[in-house]
Amino acid sequence: MIASPQVAHFTEPLPLASGATLREYDLAYETYGTLNADKSNAILICHALNASHHVAGTYADQPDNIGWWDNMVGPGKPVDTNRFFVIGVNNLGSCFGSTGPLTINPHTAKPWGADFPLVTVEDWVDSHARLMDWLGIAKLAAVMGGSLGGMQAMCWAYRYPQRVANALVIAAAPNLSAQNIAFNEVARQAIMADPAFHDGTFAEKNVKPKDGLTVARMIGHITYISDDQMEEKFGRELRDGLQYGFGSEFQIESYLRYQGEKFSEYYDANTYLRVTKALDYFDPALAHGGDLAKALSPATARFLIVSFTTDWRFSPARSREIVKALLKEKKNVTYAEVDAPHGHDAFLLENPQYLGVVRAFLARAAI
Amino acid sequence: MIASPQVAHFTEPLPLASGATLREYDLAYETYGTLNADKSNAILICHALNASHHVAGTYADQPDNIGWWDNMVGPGKPVDTNRFFVIGVNNLGSCFGSTGPLTINPHTAKPWGADFPLVTVEDWVDSHARLMDWLGIAKLAAVMGGSLGGMQAMCWAYRYPQRVANALVIAAAPNLSAQNIAFNEVARQAIMADPAFHDGTFAEKNVKPKDGLTVARMIGHITYISDDQMEEKFGRELRDGLQYGFGSEFQIESYLRYQGEKFSEYYDANTYLRVTKALDYFDPALAHGGDLAKALSPATARFLIVSFTTDWRFSPARSREIVKALLKEKKNVTYAEVDAPHGHDAFLLENPQYLGVVRAFLARAAI
Repeated sequence: MIASPQVAHFTEPLPLASGATLREYDLAYETYGTLNADKSNAILICHALNASHHVAGTYADQPDNIGWWDNMVGPGKPVDTNRFFVIGVNNLGSCFGSTGPLTINPHTAKPWGADFPLVTVEDWVDSHARLMDWLGIAKLAAVMGGSLGGMQAMCWAYRYPQRVANALVIAAAPNLSAQNIAFNEVARQAIMADPAFHDGTFAEKNVKPKDGLTVARMIGHITYISDDQMEEKFGRELRDGLQYGFGSEFQIESYLRYQGEKFSEYYDANTYLRVTKALDYFDPALAHGGDLAKALSPATARFLIVSFTTDWRFSPARSREIVKALLKEKKNVTYAEVDAPHGHDAFLLENPQYLGVVRAFLARAAI
Repeated sequence: MIASPQVAHFTEPLPLASGATLREYDLAYETYGTLNADKSNAILICHALNASHHVAGTYADQPDNIGWWDNMVGPGKPVDTNRFFVIGVNNLGSCFGSTGPLTINPHTAKPWGADFPLVTVEDWVDSHARLMDWLGIAKLAAVMGGSLGGMQAMCWAYRYPQRVANALVIAAAPNLSAQNIAFNEVARQAIMADPAFHDGTFAEKNVKPKDGLTVARMIGHITYISDDQMEEKFGRELRDGLQYGFGSEFQIESYLRYQGEKFSEYYDANTYLRVTKALDYFDPALAHGGDLAKALSPATARFLIVSFTTDWRFSPARSREIVKALLKEKKNVTYAEVDAPHGHDAFLLENPQYLGVVRAFLARAAI
């Protein structure tokens, strides 16, 4: 499947949760499959921390550049592009095509950098809704995502209840725990402590706070995989015996450094700061005195909630909070707790039970 | 109880696990209680990551400077200084009085800094044994410690089996897991990425890599307390409403930054690097083909192994590995899994069950 990234330009100002307004902005997106005549077969895929609109397939000129959810989305796959018209969108504030800190700020002719406003899950969903308007899609057959993407799917369901027929909320949580926020904050401190960060104005100085981003990603990565999986994959294996120095001695060190450095090459530090803040802020119950059921009450969608047994970032207990709130409001909800060894990352990986659950849920979705 | 720090100077070279040799060195120590006539009532306390020889009591000129295990050690306390002669020692490589990276290197007349050798748990125990020689103590009534201190107690028991009557190994593990090493490595990377680190030569330049140390401590701190405890203490509580900025918005952020910054004021970055490496390296089973029982086989001490239910740094399962290995070798071992909400930090805190177990175990220790 060959994908073609596209860009939609919006000139109607977007009011943000912070009180700021984006006067105009681009959203990068991709589509797979064919929109049917009554435009009722569209599925929106929301991405998590470091992903993009490139959900599935490859690019004609980049045959190795495979979409991040290619095992989930495509012809005959659980999200079957023979039946559905699938849309991937890059979130505002990101660094892969939609307007964000690396974009030139029309007011200053310099990269937005530190001046790019903080964006929330609600802001993203509002901008997605405008993209749906632009595509002429009044109601989505489904909106789905994993992790932060699952939070966006949940938000869609209560914020635009008439526009979502099915919501798939995978490896998500109703909000971040203190420990989740703590890990995000340490990552942000690592970035902001990097002298190349320059208070967020590094892009106009043509430098990148790579060391800070590397540490931030290493911290994040630890929370994405399960303790057991890390033990099984790396354990205490050494690369080349004990060196009594500060190079990479254990395989796990080498692996994490590699992951961190790779990430620091392609990801934007200001985006990282903003995406982790969007995670920290997400808390639909807050406006309802802590009552998640009340927050989800407007939703009319069928829900699929999926969690993974070894996910310690957003544990099954957090998904069950969502399920409980939905049941309290007598919503149509299916819950699957998938036995998987991979921790949080499981939502991106091959797992027949997991993929089967999504397939079966969507098979029962009317379009 | 008023304590007086003392320093013992050693001129016999100490060969280290790395192959390096410390030609001479100081060990800072304190004692509490009175050594009996046949010198059979001594208990050595080994410290964990950031503690020191100041285990109990206060200083005459610093009435607020209370020892780190003052709830455990003192007259009438579980480690009763009316009965025992208790010794606290600061480990080599530390920054509180024993020879370490901040000490002047006699060869160069500059601080050791990056040139200070890496030290291991075994090296520490060897140096402790010399301190016991210096104090004229042939055999310890007990050696005890929590976390990294527990590893030293364990090491004492198999490395100097004839010199340890009782070993109390609290909140420890037979080695670090891949995840444990991963957290240590991220902390080290944060320190080494700080431009004020200057490859470890910061002391001679009169600067300190405080930003890196702050991040390192924040990472560590997350692993010391349980998820539940963090949730209960801080949850998603805000300091002053949502600010849509990168200051401390959530109480947990503010708490961690405070802890990190406080730590960066008094702790040495080169010490942090070395202490985390000593943790990573500790693995008594390694020299015995992975057989922990074989590694512990020389020990003759009575053992008390204590773990805490919510400790996710060194979980009860890790303590049970030690217990299992000791039982396999038919050692005298008592195991207590203490129900405590505080995570790894529980070994430092008030807990009647925990303190009672230590008290009862030592009451049965012959002196």
